[in-house]
Amino acid sequence: MAENKKQVEQITDMEVDFAQWYTDVCKKAELIDYSSIKGMFIYRPYGYAIWENIQHLMDAEFKRLGHENVYLPMLIPESLLQKEKDHVEGFAPECAWVTMGGSEKLEERYCIRPTSETLFCEHYKTVIHSHRDLPKLYNQWCSVLRWEKTSRPFLRHREFLWQEGHTMHATEAEAREETQRMLNVYADFMENVLAMPVVKGRKTDKEKFNGAEETYTVECMMHDKKALQAGTSHYFGDGFARAFDITFTGADNQLHHPHQTSWGSSTRLIGGIIMTHGDNNGLVLPPKVAPIQVVVIPVAQHKEGVLDANRAVVERLTAAGFRVKMDDSDKAPGWKFAEYEMKGVPLRLELGPKDMEKNQCVLARRDSGEKTFVSLDGLESAVAEALEAIHQGLFEKAKRNLEEHCYPAFSLEEAKAIQEEKGGFIKTMWCGDEACEDRMKAEAGMSSRCIPFAQEHLGDVCPICGKPAKHMVYWGVAY
Amino acid sequence: MAENKKQVEQITDMEVDFAQWYTDVCKKAELIDYSSIKGMFIYRPYGYAIWENIQHLMDAEFKRLGHENVYLPMLIPESLLQKEKDHVEGFAPECAWVTMGGSEKLEERYCIRPTSETLFCEHYKTVIHSHRDLPKLYNQWCSVLRWEKTSRPFLRHREFLWQEGHTMHATEAEAREETQRMLNVYADFMENVLAMPVVKGRKTDKEKFNGAEETYTVECMMHDKKALQAGTSHYFGDGFARAFDITFTGADNQLHHPHQTSWGSSTRLIGGIIMTHGDNNGLVLPPKVAPIQVVVIPVAQHKEGVLDANRAVVERLTAAGFRVKMDDSDKAPGWKFAEYEMKGVPLRLELGPKDMEKNQCVLARRDSGEKTFVSLDGLESAVAEALEAIHQGLFEKAKRNLEEHCYPAFSLEEAKAIQEEKGGFIKTMWCGDEACEDRMKAEAGMSSRCIPFAQEHLGDVCPICGKPAKHMVYWGVAY
Repeated sequence: MAENKKQVEQITDMEVDFAQWYTDVCKKAELIDYSSIKGMFIYRPYGYAIWENIQHLMDAEFKRLGHENVYLPMLIPESLLQKEKDHVEGFAPECAWVTMGGSEKLEERYCIRPTSETLFCEHYKTVIHSHRDLPKLYNQWCSVLRWEKTSRPFLRHREFLWQEGHTMHATEAEAREETQRMLNVYADFMENVLAMPVVKGRKTDKEKFNGAEETYTVECMMHDKKALQAGTSHYFGDGFARAFDITFTGADNQLHHPHQTSWGSSTRLIGGIIMTHGDNNGLVLPPKVAPIQVVVIPVAQHKEGVLDANRAVVERLTAAGFRVKMDDSDKAPGWKFAEYEMKGVPLRLELGPKDMEKNQCVLARRDSGEKTFVSLDGLESAVAEALEAIHQGLFEKAKRNLEEHCYPAFSLEEAKAIQEEKGGFIKTMWCGDEACEDRMKAEAGMSSRCIPFAQEHLGDVCPICGKPAKHMVYWGVAY
Repeated sequence: MAENKKQVEQITDMEVDFAQWYTDVCKKAELIDYSSIKGMFIYRPYGYAIWENIQHLMDAEFKRLGHENVYLPMLIPESLLQKEKDHVEGFAPECAWVTMGGSEKLEERYCIRPTSETLFCEHYKTVIHSHRDLPKLYNQWCSVLRWEKTSRPFLRHREFLWQEGHTMHATEAEAREETQRMLNVYADFMENVLAMPVVKGRKTDKEKFNGAEETYTVECMMHDKKALQAGTSHYFGDGFARAFDITFTGADNQLHHPHQTSWGSSTRLIGGIIMTHGDNNGLVLPPKVAPIQVVVIPVAQHKEGVLDANRAVVERLTAAGFRVKMDDSDKAPGWKFAEYEMKGVPLRLELGPKDMEKNQCVLARRDSGEKTFVSLDGLESAVAEALEAIHQGLFEKAKRNLEEHCYPAFSLEEAKAIQEEKGGFIKTMWCGDEACEDRMKAEAGMSSRCIPFAQEHLGDVCPICGKPAKHMVYWGVAY
């Protein structure tokens, strides 16, 4: 390994400087590049291919549950954005505004969508009339723009790619059910596809989405013990419907306002993958979204029959549905090994003359470095098993990281001390007051991550103010 | 048929008012809706699903040819847009400009991308260094914005969805080859997937893309005999590479500028589908991109076993890979027939108690109205054959429309008279001067569609100015 590392450009060790390690991986694995506008990034082929795989799998699940994709305009007239008070207050400060069309000054300025609730509501008003028109289960894949002051690849962009689901329902119960259903879709996706274990819970009022009645979240823990909000699902009640005057005639022949949800996840998931699974040799990709699942490296490729044997393996694995790439370039094997390690390819297959004699090949796991000899006869199932084992291995390692770094605390000072010494999620009781959240932020640098569904009783009072406790809360430093 | 039509909202006959017929179909087939911003449209689920099918098939072909997808920012700094003189002159007049970020006025204004050559060039400058880095074969699926004064659903939007390919090559020959390869990808796609026959050719200098050395096009003829430019492929030479100072070290160890192409197609293809295949009962979709390929309508569905038999058929066809929907709602069959005719579903399958006794069902073709009884035993192949026959039928009908409405003309007056009486593509010899194109436009209302690859010799002189002719040109009124 040490030898290989010399052959590619070094990246900073994560123990030395995690932030620099992260940036190095983003650049050296060729995931992303900077553009000339601060905070706007270029998704390079390898990074975009991960997103395509995420899209493909998530979209199939949305559709299986009856959702339909649509595309709404990227511009929102200022007057439309202002229709829901809490919503505009939250988003207006970070809008980019279009004020000129061609050479003419516009009569009303338009913001580039930071999110599309207002646009969906305007459309829903024209297509929802009767209870027969409900539910509307829409989703949109697009980019959104938020004019933030700081930026970091994948984690905080001024423009980022995401999906936003927007649904309308005849009853509160149905809308609440949808909110939970989609939260669970995200939780299952993070765990079963991205191998990222989650904590599920509800956001506090301070942290909820602007305009929502309730926001639910899946929170993941990164390798550096910081939190990443990986997906959120919002219940709106009929607040937007009232603001936008959306009504339908019920089976009772009366006019009603529909109940609404929205839910979103974004390319920050790629940042989550990097920081959950990566190591000092670079990226480590969960097999289900890896653009290349198996890289085939011919050994002694100049020898007779080696390339043909390797090509046959590529054909077999491709036919079996794996994403496979052969590298028969003239680079040294050590160089190739290091390069595909940097790119996080889950499985490396080596096949040379000696292996051919024995009707076998070598499979090397990116996550553990483990190498095994495998008979070519059962290659397809051996590869499938290895990829599944890698997924499981990644998930279990991340799960241990999460479980080993959740600490109860019984005073603000203790919470602060644990955060400074160990990081992680710190759980305390909480009175429900925003003032205590503000104190935790000011004194211990942590925001509330969620009120987890899995509540524990750690006492009867809020350790911050001493008032009676309402919930147990997870606190953390978040990306 | 007449009976059915009474049961859904009427659309204008295409012979009465083609433009109104088109708008009616767009709305009644639930493809698209208007937003509150002029020229910006909402792609509704059924319209967007057509686009998803187009994307899916086209993207697979791009990837098969080695292209990789990327995503670049939506904003272009004004200074970047200005780097290539012809390009900025063409696009600046229709840019939407962002001048405010949050509450702050920007130091430099940014335009929302009308196309992304400049952004790609900026990125290529950072990733191309050696001949080993070439070719770069990138594609991007995104929306672009052009602040046009007039708009029409799918055909002319201020914001529309498209793909833009951008490639860089070591040699002129390779770049020219790519330009033609991608033109042929479009031509094959239009004909083999969308059943839209094309005329392939080169644009005149007046009609070429701003900044390109040469633009190639596939031109389709709509039912009303007007032209639709369905896809274009541009050869740039090294003009942008020079303007952006992009160089690479060749195998000869010298610095060179790479040669560039770009190529694009957009959601206007959906407009093309509507106007090529539609009829007075609504939309007619080519089977390969139809969101629903077969609609299954149970007959006498209250009778015992009917719904089960229909469900079994849906399961079989879905398992065979067809996109199938059953409508067992309580609407009258005539209503359902008319509704799915309006939506252009290629094949309707009817199955009732009498059919069940005979182990058969009815297949009704949307394009011809033809109904056949088909044994349930070989249903999968019968459906596959019917869909293929529909594709062929649509293509041949459109091909006849194209071939029967191409007329030679030998004077400007004749060209004008033919256009007024018959419409279609009018072919004449041409001297190559823009002044003659301007006269044709001013006097006969036609622009040059292309210099077709399939040249004919219709004489030795330009019928407009009398100077020696260089090419035969197709003229037409274009969308």
